[in-house]
Amino acid sequence: MGSDFAPKNEILGAVFAAQEKPDTLEVTLVGKEDVIRKFLKENNYNPANLFVVNAEEVITMHDSPSETYKTKPKSSISVALDLHKDNKVDAVISAGNTGAFTANSILKMGRIPGIGRPTIGSLLPTDFGKLIILDVGAFVDCRPNHLYEFAVMGSIYMNYMFKIDKPRVGILNVGEEKTKGNELSIEVYKLLENSKLNFIGNVEGGDILKGKADVIVCDGFVGNILLKFAESFVDVLKHKFKVYAGEGFMNKIQVGMTSGTLKKILKQFDYQEYGGVPLLGLNGVCIIGHGKSTPLAIKNMIFKAEEIIRLKINAAISRYLSS
Amino acid sequence: MGSDFAPKNEILGAVFAAQEKPDTLEVTLVGKEDVIRKFLKENNYNPANLFVVNAEEVITMHDSPSETYKTKPKSSISVALDLHKDNKVDAVISAGNTGAFTANSILKMGRIPGIGRPTIGSLLPTDFGKLIILDVGAFVDCRPNHLYEFAVMGSIYMNYMFKIDKPRVGILNVGEEKTKGNELSIEVYKLLENSKLNFIGNVEGGDILKGKADVIVCDGFVGNILLKFAESFVDVLKHKFKVYAGEGFMNKIQVGMTSGTLKKILKQFDYQEYGGVPLLGLNGVCIIGHGKSTPLAIKNMIFKAEEIIRLKINAAISRYLSS
Repeated sequence: MGSDFAPKNEILGAVFAAQEKPDTLEVTLVGKEDVIRKFLKENNYNPANLFVVNAEEVITMHDSPSETYKTKPKSSISVALDLHKDNKVDAVISAGNTGAFTANSILKMGRIPGIGRPTIGSLLPTDFGKLIILDVGAFVDCRPNHLYEFAVMGSIYMNYMFKIDKPRVGILNVGEEKTKGNELSIEVYKLLENSKLNFIGNVEGGDILKGKADVIVCDGFVGNILLKFAESFVDVLKHKFKVYAGEGFMNKIQVGMTSGTLKKILKQFDYQEYGGVPLLGLNGVCIIGHGKSTPLAIKNMIFKAEEIIRLKINAAISRYLSS
Repeated sequence: MGSDFAPKNEILGAVFAAQEKPDTLEVTLVGKEDVIRKFLKENNYNPANLFVVNAEEVITMHDSPSETYKTKPKSSISVALDLHKDNKVDAVISAGNTGAFTANSILKMGRIPGIGRPTIGSLLPTDFGKLIILDVGAFVDCRPNHLYEFAVMGSIYMNYMFKIDKPRVGILNVGEEKTKGNELSIEVYKLLENSKLNFIGNVEGGDILKGKADVIVCDGFVGNILLKFAESFVDVLKHKFKVYAGEGFMNKIQVGMTSGTLKKILKQFDYQEYGGVPLLGLNGVCIIGHGKSTPLAIKNMIFKAEEIIRLKINAAISRYLSS
């Protein structure tokens, strides 16, 4: 209910997902029942595997994340997580307030044993494939063991989801040498060096997109700033092309011929292609989407949740940490 | 002597600068005299305002920055800084080992009174102009007062160099609210809020390139990773276009038509256009260039040093801090 285009995009994405997999998937829309039912009826959508559960309250993008657990117990986020906790649904996805969804998820679902902090990881395209960078926004002040846990969860995620054998793990840092960086990165280096993970050392900002690592760990402060910067870079490039086109007739023709190619290239940097990011380390499956998620993005988030459940990624994380 | 294409690019840049301003500029090349004189002779370069001073040792990119002050007292960086200290030159520029140049500069030249930490700022293009982000690599663990000083220096730099009236200052952060961020950013917020600077609050990663602020402050860990990431983004885009072109004849034609436009756009993100970045807060004028600086970049660095001297930026910083 709280995303930028809610509930329209959520309903459409859910309908498309339900229609695409009528026999293997059940989708439950949680939110203001009357609004949802009205939209479904007006558009004549009624797949048999689509359900609606009412939730009176809405968490907006302006609500303080940590307070919503107490102040809005009947929000769509809260009610959906209750369904998950009670085993009535196998996963929850949301494109709403990221902080609120994260906080409520952790409080309601709890953590996988051995995990001090759940994390939001994000996929980025590289020269040769893709990588996961984590944390990108859940926690700004991290301790060394948290980054170690991020490395474990990221490795298992890349291994299970993308069949990458022994994912290469790097620490985001200002230099390659072991002694470079801030206190946190130097301590994390020691932990990863002595781990069973495929640790390749420090990775600089300029190496992220070059495919040197499959998993990059950093604290949520650096990760969040970097991810938002990367997303905006694509927007700014598009804008610069537009301005350039406006400067003259020949420019316009040039950009016109260019835009198709550019679109194909920039599509690789489009978060929607990846369909949301999982909150890893949680005793449950929760997928967080961009506030501007389109119906396609919502549909992909649902399918991603399905895959995470099928691959039993949480069980694998739990096994690794207890071994 | 220690940059990626030294000393060729340095010599060419110095020659071009000297030739362009025969009456108002004197350029001194510091390094292995025989090598430099041989290159000048072979290419028949002998402007009257170009001088050579010998320096036996070379600091490489592999030398530990903090140790070079003791281990290589006769390096070109060290000898050049001695000339500056003795008032024989008015500024020093280098495209060599950034850390070593920074450390030696601080130790030899000292700081402007009131400055706890000098800083490296970098210019970035925005939708509407440019901004300075600092620190981008000198210091990874910063205290709140350091970021306050960065804000002062960045404001004066943007005001003097680009005639921006009351530069808008922002803190790089994970959210706009005053209470968002890590310990450092929350403390810096309080300092800037009570300052005479034109403080506009927190700026998120996605806002950097959108021109919301003229000066953005962050610690050197975040700034360095972000800057290197931004530089590499342009390289990766170019690479992706190349790969796309290789996938078929029609793609090749499309990219061929595109490349001119793309080059013009990406040029704005080219560090060479900006000709190096100053080490601000130093009791002297030192300009740091990219290790891959071309002759054009070197020439622009020399001209930038000239402008900083002419505008008396250090005196302005000193005045602000003592008022």
